[in-house]
Amino acid sequence: MDQSLGKASVRLEKPVYIINSASVVGTKEGQGPLGLLFDKVGQDDMFGCATWEEAESTLQRDAVQTALEKAGVSSDDISFIYAGDLLGQSIATSFGLSSYQIPLFGVYGACSTCGEALTLGTMAVAGGFASRVLCVTSSHFASAEKEFRFPLEYGNQRPLSATWTVTGAAAFVLGGEKCQGSDKNGGKMCARAKITGFTVGKIVDYGLKDSMNMGACMAPAAASTLERHFIDYNSQPDDYDKIITGDLGKVGQRVLADMMSEKGYDISGKHMDCGIEIYDSESQDTHAGGSGCGCSAVTLSAFILKQLEDENWRRILFAPTGALLSKTSFNEGKSVPGIAHCLVIERCD
Amino acid sequence: MDQSLGKASVRLEKPVYIINSASVVGTKEGQGPLGLLFDKVGQDDMFGCATWEEAESTLQRDAVQTALEKAGVSSDDISFIYAGDLLGQSIATSFGLSSYQIPLFGVYGACSTCGEALTLGTMAVAGGFASRVLCVTSSHFASAEKEFRFPLEYGNQRPLSATWTVTGAAAFVLGGEKCQGSDKNGGKMCARAKITGFTVGKIVDYGLKDSMNMGACMAPAAASTLERHFIDYNSQPDDYDKIITGDLGKVGQRVLADMMSEKGYDISGKHMDCGIEIYDSESQDTHAGGSGCGCSAVTLSAFILKQLEDENWRRILFAPTGALLSKTSFNEGKSVPGIAHCLVIERCD
Repeated sequence: MDQSLGKASVRLEKPVYIINSASVVGTKEGQGPLGLLFDKVGQDDMFGCATWEEAESTLQRDAVQTALEKAGVSSDDISFIYAGDLLGQSIATSFGLSSYQIPLFGVYGACSTCGEALTLGTMAVAGGFASRVLCVTSSHFASAEKEFRFPLEYGNQRPLSATWTVTGAAAFVLGGEKCQGSDKNGGKMCARAKITGFTVGKIVDYGLKDSMNMGACMAPAAASTLERHFIDYNSQPDDYDKIITGDLGKVGQRVLADMMSEKGYDISGKHMDCGIEIYDSESQDTHAGGSGCGCSAVTLSAFILKQLEDENWRRILFAPTGALLSKTSFNEGKSVPGIAHCLVIERCD
Repeated sequence: MDQSLGKASVRLEKPVYIINSASVVGTKEGQGPLGLLFDKVGQDDMFGCATWEEAESTLQRDAVQTALEKAGVSSDDISFIYAGDLLGQSIATSFGLSSYQIPLFGVYGACSTCGEALTLGTMAVAGGFASRVLCVTSSHFASAEKEFRFPLEYGNQRPLSATWTVTGAAAFVLGGEKCQGSDKNGGKMCARAKITGFTVGKIVDYGLKDSMNMGACMAPAAASTLERHFIDYNSQPDDYDKIITGDLGKVGQRVLADMMSEKGYDISGKHMDCGIEIYDSESQDTHAGGSGCGCSAVTLSAFILKQLEDENWRRILFAPTGALLSKTSFNEGKSVPGIAHCLVIERCD
């Protein structure tokens, strides 16, 4: 019964399947390098709503609806939702998902929330407590700027180390069975990928206080979780086709490579960062890259799982990273601690 | 392997034990009816800190330290922490628990967070993913007033339906084994109680918008979860010695009794509310009762588990309730949805 490896890691006896998933993004993400891969791209970033917060709620609702349709299941087939966002008291989630009438666990890990939700959902399915769960996360550029920084109307300048909060949400349907019967054309409906294990991250605080350089704040947490994973799994970077962090951006990527090198791991040929992939920083004025609970989530759904399905990759490490700050903690002069969780995601054979 | 009952409920094949727990509270809670039962009462509500937020972080840290000591385990013996609070981006948790270096899942369910954390921790242990976990929640009157309402200096008046946010934190060590060896005097160290199942709540929104009457906002969620539980378990109120909600207060209690009666369940002789128990509303000017992530948590640790240990009760339902609002959602004219999770907690025989 005991599936734990060391204290922080789990290798599952039986994998949990990502039955299907969906991504919904804003205009800027639709114009980026991954634009054609997302399930839905908004016509504008209000998504027909009166406030940024409602727009973000709508992103979550649309992502869930699309994921359910793609998985061929209804909301009645889902036992629990694990969901979160960046806003105070997670209101994008509360107002976005209430109409589904599904038992809900609210989760918060800043931009690592997608990793946290998938890990908790995986435990529920693998432990025999639910046959299917949904994991949902979102972020919205404008609601995040309002929550953490300055009103958009100020037009304040952003340093090159700053990241751009992704407007997007993704939803993942997890279940214990690889195939889910047939679709309407009689084709076999099989899962997109399987989760075979995970390593849960701890809070890592190097005392950095620059909320405009979150990549540097989060890189130590990513390094801590990846090192823990390699030790617990007795594995090496070469055992994975890609090692994919969340929102480190270009500054954080360099810090992570240096820190892993000091720990004796060369990840330079394997590393990819969702925040770097989602925008073209040259043409889109996004500086260091993308961030937000939606960033790694929509990249996983639209791009990463597709690489596994297309047999370009066989096994990856997916490690979303989060910066644990609030405007209150920032204004009180506190540091920006980081956290990262990683999952082993493999191709369904 | 499948332990689910219906969609929202689980009855565990093997119970999860509350090995030990601890509660730390502020001065007002120390002067209340349960004052003598808490493990620690602060000399003032700053707990030696410069800000209310740091004081709340200290509450969490002290509760964890005391719970670990009482359980006779070290932080190295804990696989995961499940923790949360009411503040934006859960900063009381992030800054309170980073020093423990334990893998962390941040959770948010407003004042229901204690129930959510215990449910998730229970799944991790029962599923064989961790041998021991910690579940921690906190709230602080002054940090909550700052987060949700008015600066304390305004001295604004509160209606009689308002609740008083509890200054307090509690931590629970969960594990799979009933007894944990011997204490230093050779006595057997056994768990305080056992968790035998749970029902996970969904968001319930009756469209109420009065953030000064959260009991009425949360009562429909409590009613929904309790009804779901009775149906899934095929049980009745009389199967439990007490049915204990979180922070409904005096107004919410009446609403809950009426709603349950309409659903065909008479809980009037069994119901207890942590928010009503923790203060003497007559002498302490707390109006409808207590609330906050700390309210049900410290009441469970200090009072409820003691009743099970003292053999006054054999089996209870513990159903913390949360009001899912933020100052942003309130200012944008949104409703206050509620959520409630319930656990079946039984005496260790």
